[in-house]
Amino acid sequence: MNVYIENIAAHEGQEVTIRGWLHNRRSSGKIHFLTVRDGTGFIQAVMSKAGVSPETFQQADHLSQETSLVLTGTARADSRAPGGFELDVKSLEVVAPAHEYPLTPKEHGVDYLMDRRHLWIRTERQHAVLRVRHEVVNAIRDFFNSRGFILADTPIFTPSACEGTTTLFPVQYFDDTTAYLTQSGQLYNEANAMALGRVYCFGPTFRAEKSKTRRHLTEFWMVEPEMAYATLDDVMTLGEELVSYVVGRALERRARELNVLQRDTAKLERVRPPFPRVSYDEAARILKDKGLPFEWGGDLGGTDETVLSEQFDRPVAVYGYPSAIKAFYMKPDPNRPDVSLSVDVLAPEGYGEIIGGGQRIDDYDLLLQRIKEHNLPQEAFEWYLDLRRYGSVPHAGFGMGVERVVSWICGLEHVRETIPYPRMLYRLYP
Amino acid sequence: MNVYIENIAAHEGQEVTIRGWLHNRRSSGKIHFLTVRDGTGFIQAVMSKAGVSPETFQQADHLSQETSLVLTGTARADSRAPGGFELDVKSLEVVAPAHEYPLTPKEHGVDYLMDRRHLWIRTERQHAVLRVRHEVVNAIRDFFNSRGFILADTPIFTPSACEGTTTLFPVQYFDDTTAYLTQSGQLYNEANAMALGRVYCFGPTFRAEKSKTRRHLTEFWMVEPEMAYATLDDVMTLGEELVSYVVGRALERRARELNVLQRDTAKLERVRPPFPRVSYDEAARILKDKGLPFEWGGDLGGTDETVLSEQFDRPVAVYGYPSAIKAFYMKPDPNRPDVSLSVDVLAPEGYGEIIGGGQRIDDYDLLLQRIKEHNLPQEAFEWYLDLRRYGSVPHAGFGMGVERVVSWICGLEHVRETIPYPRMLYRLYP
Repeated sequence: MNVYIENIAAHEGQEVTIRGWLHNRRSSGKIHFLTVRDGTGFIQAVMSKAGVSPETFQQADHLSQETSLVLTGTARADSRAPGGFELDVKSLEVVAPAHEYPLTPKEHGVDYLMDRRHLWIRTERQHAVLRVRHEVVNAIRDFFNSRGFILADTPIFTPSACEGTTTLFPVQYFDDTTAYLTQSGQLYNEANAMALGRVYCFGPTFRAEKSKTRRHLTEFWMVEPEMAYATLDDVMTLGEELVSYVVGRALERRARELNVLQRDTAKLERVRPPFPRVSYDEAARILKDKGLPFEWGGDLGGTDETVLSEQFDRPVAVYGYPSAIKAFYMKPDPNRPDVSLSVDVLAPEGYGEIIGGGQRIDDYDLLLQRIKEHNLPQEAFEWYLDLRRYGSVPHAGFGMGVERVVSWICGLEHVRETIPYPRMLYRLYP
Repeated sequence: MNVYIENIAAHEGQEVTIRGWLHNRRSSGKIHFLTVRDGTGFIQAVMSKAGVSPETFQQADHLSQETSLVLTGTARADSRAPGGFELDVKSLEVVAPAHEYPLTPKEHGVDYLMDRRHLWIRTERQHAVLRVRHEVVNAIRDFFNSRGFILADTPIFTPSACEGTTTLFPVQYFDDTTAYLTQSGQLYNEANAMALGRVYCFGPTFRAEKSKTRRHLTEFWMVEPEMAYATLDDVMTLGEELVSYVVGRALERRARELNVLQRDTAKLERVRPPFPRVSYDEAARILKDKGLPFEWGGDLGGTDETVLSEQFDRPVAVYGYPSAIKAFYMKPDPNRPDVSLSVDVLAPEGYGEIIGGGQRIDDYDLLLQRIKEHNLPQEAFEWYLDLRRYGSVPHAGFGMGVERVVSWICGLEHVRETIPYPRMLYRLYP
């Protein structure tokens, strides 16, 4: 009976067949210990000289790492085994060899590994990261679905830039038309929220970032909720509940993976609402007090975010950024228009911004004025202006980047490990 | 208390506030009947002259379609009401007007509606389609997650073409590099399956199709599962279980929406495993018997698919297509190499191919030969060849297009209504 390693506990004492790859091998002369992986887990298979044919025992002596093989044997509980079970092997079938597998247990440089990303993902550490990613994505979806949000996919091909044009990837569409790859589904989300009340989009977004940092990819996944009849306060509450839920799911369902990654989960256990909420004004004061050369009016840099987040034991929401440094659609505070109804949520431990959002301008005249001030082509935004022409309502939302969140939960140095095939300035292969 | 219309049954007899938009209005002189939508549903609000202030009653007389408004009143059960409830209005607050709303209840042409897609999605019919889409996407994810598949996102930016170059969208990456937008995550899926056992990717894919048909978009969403140690037979079984599950979920949870769309659900109720499985040879015979000018060796055209699917009361799996018309990576039948271990699943009622897949070549030499025969750049496929160099195993998978499935379940004429902002040859706005 074919069994996945992750399900072996249900087959104690039974004869099972495991189909996988050889991960590691050692031998005592009379016993071969084969560590086998099948994608769902790792198990030690014990082959004693007495238990198999002489040919099989000899064959096992020459198996190289990543040989694909089918093992049949008895599942035996063993409290010392990492997964609680071992396999007493009765027969072995080699499916295909793996001569000179290029990823040995020794240390390899990052470029070497990235060039072999399709093989690197076969390691236990990368399995752990990718399973946490899987959990994060599914937790996000479950969170929004259970709250009545409707998934409404926004287009990847867009006719105009959402926020500036310098980091856009243009695509030759048909004939003489240029399309741009989306940087955010937000403008469309707003239209969808006017139609469906509460919506989210969740897809890849693109930024032609020429900078090489450990926090940026050119292609990354973002979830963006948007709510009609909602304010800045509503999105701050939604954001802290989302982040707490996602972290909780990872702790609950991916404890094994976080252990493989040697993550200090005590720091994640603290991630519960409410998050501290700090105005941009206060943030500026804190940074000055810490001796940083920060001036009111500027955006928070990487160091500023790190220093600020170190003041708290959980993510911190910074709200009320200067209107001048936020996107054209951000609603100004009615009591103080130089400040916007915006919020960024910064992850702890220096992982930077994981959420950015706020309340949108709902007044037609003000939005038109902003489009003109930003030298945006009005014609391309006529549909967006329609949302303020016909039954405008207060509305708000945010975006949360998946790779940043996975990187933080896993405790990684660099976002490049958070996605199977990262795309960066000099990285398009494999 | 703010309440969504979809939840109003929990508030019978209570005073509730509904925040939405005016959909329709009629008056008997002493009573205004306001149909209001809030994105989660529609409700009739009854405003009697005696129940509100004279100013409010008069104001309601001049409200135009899509005016945004907040209504407070008592939720009253009424078996004649579509949602089972009406609202007895006590107060009305107009949030913003909607002068000369361009979508009136009269019929509009498709181009007119498509130019105003951001408003068109406010209608009950489009709500229904988009909610079915939401259900389909979530059903697909639940199906794979509950079976132990790991979501592993494949890249949108790819360095080389997966299947031919004529329908690729090139993107200027950085400097002199050209990237192509993915047409399928499959090649990467294969690497992921070797790492994680059973995987799926689910994201937008792109085809620069110059043809205008009712089944094609340039940007569409596709789910693609891939399994290590799997055969053609395994994917045929997986495919029929997936399709049946998705249809079942739509019937179970979106009955109201299918009713709005006047879908004949009896035809959907029949979609249960097993699906009929017809070899390409048999399909060719059937088509010839029906008098169609079909010759063995050709691909099935739209008419062929329709005629074929009409022979059955549920989706039909056509397997064993000629190797010559399938992709380079498709495994030939060992007993008959001119035929491939491939399968397409055709939806009933003429909705065409919804699934395409099969077993992949797992032999290094044969794959290399195919890459050369297809004049593909070997260097770009070295990583893909690695999967056959190091522990190759039999593996198989398929792709299922979301828009085709939604179109079929909803009974739509054209796929353009199945996604919020469809992208086609001449359609990039809004």
